[in-house]
Amino acid sequence: MDALEARLRVVAKSHGETLGEHACATIEAGGKRLRPLLVFVAAGPSPAGHDAALRAAVAVELVHSATLVHDDVLDAAVLRRGRPTIAASAGRAMATATGDLLFSRAFAELAGGGSAEPVRVLSDASSALVEGELLQREDAWKLQTTRERYLRRCDLKTARLFRAACELGALAGSGNVGLLGEFGERIGLAFQLLDDVLDVSGPAERTGKHRGTDLLDGTVTLPLILARERDPELAQLDLRAVRTPEQAEGVCDAIAATGALEEARRIALEMVAEAKADLPALPEPSQQAALELVADGVVDRYR
Amino acid sequence: MDALEARLRVVAKSHGETLGEHACATIEAGGKRLRPLLVFVAAGPSPAGHDAALRAAVAVELVHSATLVHDDVLDAAVLRRGRPTIAASAGRAMATATGDLLFSRAFAELAGGGSAEPVRVLSDASSALVEGELLQREDAWKLQTTRERYLRRCDLKTARLFRAACELGALAGSGNVGLLGEFGERIGLAFQLLDDVLDVSGPAERTGKHRGTDLLDGTVTLPLILARERDPELAQLDLRAVRTPEQAEGVCDAIAATGALEEARRIALEMVAEAKADLPALPEPSQQAALELVADGVVDRYR
Repeated sequence: MDALEARLRVVAKSHGETLGEHACATIEAGGKRLRPLLVFVAAGPSPAGHDAALRAAVAVELVHSATLVHDDVLDAAVLRRGRPTIAASAGRAMATATGDLLFSRAFAELAGGGSAEPVRVLSDASSALVEGELLQREDAWKLQTTRERYLRRCDLKTARLFRAACELGALAGSGNVGLLGEFGERIGLAFQLLDDVLDVSGPAERTGKHRGTDLLDGTVTLPLILARERDPELAQLDLRAVRTPEQAEGVCDAIAATGALEEARRIALEMVAEAKADLPALPEPSQQAALELVADGVVDRYR
Repeated sequence: MDALEARLRVVAKSHGETLGEHACATIEAGGKRLRPLLVFVAAGPSPAGHDAALRAAVAVELVHSATLVHDDVLDAAVLRRGRPTIAASAGRAMATATGDLLFSRAFAELAGGGSAEPVRVLSDASSALVEGELLQREDAWKLQTTRERYLRRCDLKTARLFRAACELGALAGSGNVGLLGEFGERIGLAFQLLDDVLDVSGPAERTGKHRGTDLLDGTVTLPLILARERDPELAQLDLRAVRTPEQAEGVCDAIAATGALEEARRIALEMVAEAKADLPALPEPSQQAALELVADGVVDRYR
């Protein structure tokens, strides 16, 4: 992971001073580096694929960061991980360019490894990400969003990049691309579901934001979908009338009162259990144990 | 070129209906397809590299389109090639996403050919593009922009993608990557210089826009840089005071009166001549002739 941080910084700095400054700030603002971790764990302990795994880990984090930067432009977000966004501090042009640069460098990083297959895997995931982002905007304010449509959105905007991280790790190291890709996709789905639960459950000091920010953005997530089926008042909710953090917290309380949070958590934990169930087929017990730890880490964040 | 159009349409349509609609509209709005043409001509007549050349031509045009879409978002542009921009017709989110998708698909298209080197070439060019775009915004309203800095900007934002187009063609076909890359870079620089001359010289019915749009954007180009050295009044120009199309046309007339347009054209034509001078080293006379035709085509647009 140290090699990852060092390499991310070099890549971010490589294209002009101004751009480098903002790209670096984005990278250094951090985050959990969950996707690079998945790459490394999926690659397994073999040192042979070390360079390829490092390149893949860097590339996956760059694509993830690029998406966040562009999202902040579109949402006119002011803070991200407790720091001013590039969009807020340097304007939309700089933020759009920084995102575009991070995208370009991700593919350059993979191509530098000399193999085309990783580029195919990551470009497919990044196309899915864009599609998922748009699906979310299309479905905004639609209380009647179905569970299937919600899951499709989570798959596109989150799980596909988790899948790509595992597939890229597998390509760099241990093989087992199919099995590890499935694992990544399930963990990614669970991660998104739990993230959506956390937005409703809080507490704010854990998430760094008010409860109910999704509601204020018009984003309908699984807790509301489940609660809507249980509470006739929520089934009639006018999402556009939810405008203040206080109103959003009130709706969060109503959702929690239906038991929808426990149900959503149960569905997510089932996905994690399914992801772990396939792991014994892996030949290397130490890799299996490491993957189980990562899976548990995703869940633990929400206990 | 027919295969190119067909393939561009398939790629644009491949990721969701809404996104496909806008990506297709972008592609179908057309343009001169000069960059794909360079790929094909640089690849030469050999049918062996046909698939690789087609992929490269598609990828180069996708990156070019993505850049235009993102530029329109940042400039809040309403029209592009006589049609409403995506930013104007479907909003910034859709336009940003469409640009991101076109970027992703460019790299997927190249990776599908099974070789990593083309991905490296294109991702370097697209990073340069972003850097050039930002340089232009950083230098906006700066009348004292030097000729060196202007040429560096043109190199990054235009010539590098022309170079990449030629290098990708060379990789797919004839070889001679170094020579053809140099050719592409020179033609690209000349193309940008002549484009900047055209913005000052008009006529508007040729360019589809008023004379002096660069001035209104605060973009300082070679004609103004040369004219500033010749006319003491232009050397004192307050760019921010140029606000209406009428005022911009007045400044265009003042620039033209110094002879700066002829001088800028002369510099561009010299670059084209230098580009052509290396071509006799190519083993295939028919390829040399085709490249000369493309070089002349770039110039002809401005006669």
